[in-house]
Amino acid sequence: MIEQIRGGVTAAAGFLCGSTSAGIKNPQAPREDLALVYSELPAVAAGTFTTNLVKAAPVRVSMEHIASGEARAVVLNSGNANACTGPDGLKDARRMAVSAGLVLGVAGEEVLVCSTGRIGVRMPIARIEESIPRIKLSNTASLKCAKAIMTSDTFPKEIAVRVETPKGVFHVGGIAKGAGMIDPNMATMLCVITTDAKVSQADLKKVLGGAVEDSFNRITIDGDMSTNDTVIALANGASKVRPPLALLREAFDAVAQTLARMIVKDGEGVTKFVEIALTGAASKEDARKAAEAIANSTLVKCAWAGGDPNWGRIMDAMGYSGAKLVEEKVSIDYEDLPLVRGGLVTDTPWKKVQAVAARKEFRIGVDLGLGRFSHTVWTTDLTEEYVRLNLGE
Amino acid sequence: MIEQIRGGVTAAAGFLCGSTSAGIKNPQAPREDLALVYSELPAVAAGTFTTNLVKAAPVRVSMEHIASGEARAVVLNSGNANACTGPDGLKDARRMAVSAGLVLGVAGEEVLVCSTGRIGVRMPIARIEESIPRIKLSNTASLKCAKAIMTSDTFPKEIAVRVETPKGVFHVGGIAKGAGMIDPNMATMLCVITTDAKVSQADLKKVLGGAVEDSFNRITIDGDMSTNDTVIALANGASKVRPPLALLREAFDAVAQTLARMIVKDGEGVTKFVEIALTGAASKEDARKAAEAIANSTLVKCAWAGGDPNWGRIMDAMGYSGAKLVEEKVSIDYEDLPLVRGGLVTDTPWKKVQAVAARKEFRIGVDLGLGRFSHTVWTTDLTEEYVRLNLGE
Repeated sequence: MIEQIRGGVTAAAGFLCGSTSAGIKNPQAPREDLALVYSELPAVAAGTFTTNLVKAAPVRVSMEHIASGEARAVVLNSGNANACTGPDGLKDARRMAVSAGLVLGVAGEEVLVCSTGRIGVRMPIARIEESIPRIKLSNTASLKCAKAIMTSDTFPKEIAVRVETPKGVFHVGGIAKGAGMIDPNMATMLCVITTDAKVSQADLKKVLGGAVEDSFNRITIDGDMSTNDTVIALANGASKVRPPLALLREAFDAVAQTLARMIVKDGEGVTKFVEIALTGAASKEDARKAAEAIANSTLVKCAWAGGDPNWGRIMDAMGYSGAKLVEEKVSIDYEDLPLVRGGLVTDTPWKKVQAVAARKEFRIGVDLGLGRFSHTVWTTDLTEEYVRLNLGE
Repeated sequence: MIEQIRGGVTAAAGFLCGSTSAGIKNPQAPREDLALVYSELPAVAAGTFTTNLVKAAPVRVSMEHIASGEARAVVLNSGNANACTGPDGLKDARRMAVSAGLVLGVAGEEVLVCSTGRIGVRMPIARIEESIPRIKLSNTASLKCAKAIMTSDTFPKEIAVRVETPKGVFHVGGIAKGAGMIDPNMATMLCVITTDAKVSQADLKKVLGGAVEDSFNRITIDGDMSTNDTVIALANGASKVRPPLALLREAFDAVAQTLARMIVKDGEGVTKFVEIALTGAASKEDARKAAEAIANSTLVKCAWAGGDPNWGRIMDAMGYSGAKLVEEKVSIDYEDLPLVRGGLVTDTPWKKVQAVAARKEFRIGVDLGLGRFSHTVWTTDLTEEYVRLNLGE
């Protein structure tokens, strides 16, 4: 049985966390901007990272450190992405890991690094080094850490679940910060998931990869892929329960999907949460292409902002998506209302469909009528407020 | 010598055109919405059409009719795209061609059809059939025709050139309507180019293909590709001049590039015209991918709207473009100001770069430092006004 509980990243036994203010973006306007998540026991580690060729220094350093398959801690900051900062940026990311390691009594290589905020600006590494020792670790500070990694997020994102098994109880929890390149000068999505389940590194990798694929890889706000995206999982085995992989995956899915939905709902200037359930594609890749083309079409998103169920723009976006498509076989539903059948508009009263598109949250079902493959994407509308928030610094 | 002259689509000898009001979108609020371009002599014809898999009926019919390599006329309308209209839409498009043919005394198969406007709505074909005979053809009506095909364009788009050769004078002229899916319910770009040069169909195809590749295929406003995009060229040989292909191409380039720039400048809610000159790519395809990723990034475009020369967003967009990229080799210039060298920001005063990004028109040079391939794109910013205009009907 999977049950939602409080505690976020410290819900699992043997995990502590804490945060402090390091004045990273602006020492004159300090806020909590530095967080540390720590496993008291050695933990196996797995991570997924941005596939952008322009990778921020913390991403490069975390990829190096996680190669061992083990880690004891993650140090995270907001206010500076440490991206496009060259060799100096790499040194700074390593120094963050080493500083955290010194305080925790572990090697720098056992610490992973996540950064979010401005790009192209050197990290104030001295302030970070001074601040890390001030962080007080506890098993009640998860929400504080979730807040410390926020940039223009409007609410902190954390979740945890408790899972009962015949062999005992284990926990999975996580914190995340928002996507949508939220910070004016570039942002990112970051996520740390912890569990006290016993699991091999290979299995953790498998479970995390699958959970990310079905959550964070299905959300899109503006189609811009960050230089810093990182999802890290640490499993310390403190519960002594080795759950069946399917159950662990289910718990990871619950945590990752909840955090992913929170990220979409907190997209900049967003007023709608839209699920696009694409079915009937000739291949898995086609299903993804068609669903993402709809989700990323500027015009489709503008129409949703206006409460307009513009099926023509949806047809158009799929037509240039690269997916195999036969116009005459396409069906489109807004919730349970059939809007398009055989590529042609139905006689469903327009006002009824408009009423669905006026909701804050709705589901669009699109069937290509060509095969058995499907893909679901969670996305948002595109608003004037989004443009306003992203005009610059 | 290539010299700009008046006359648009009738600047070339032997071409007539005319327009009328057919009340296509709304018979209660009539405006000129139907245009006819006619060659008095048999003309060779070439066309390029949207690659969207969802093709409007007029596109399908024009593709069929142009297969012969010859055409005598083009009938164009605004107010209805005749897209996603199924077998009825196809019948309507054929009826438009036949009606125009009857009036002109040519076969329906010799007439090409272009439509722009709302998608998914049946064409008021009876009103069109009644209206075509009312069109008065003349060699002074080009601007009137350019106006009749406007949707939310704010100005008509026409251009013509006169070319002197040792063997005599020939002309190339054209009209176009705007891109950016301008109409709330979907729009398109349409263009008709006429010339009195003598040229074989194969050569016309080559010349038009090249000119489109270097003009209309280099512009992007929102990355959404229409169901109706059409560029048609008719060459009737009335000048009796068979120019060297390079010269004909130069004249076509002048016409197509002028019209393409007009289209970008008239994008919905647009405040900036931005040229992205991408060089140093490892392949032609990479150059295109990187340039288009910059041009279509929602965040890059929002930054321009705010006058922010946000190089981080440019690096980021190239990083996920699919083009080969080595961060440490990238250079970015705003006009002649070096902003990024070796992937790192230079010490060019930020205020100077901001002053460039504040202009209504500027050029960004990006060099990947990996090879000899280049690609140039013309694009715009993304504004609150764009979102407002596209919220719905």
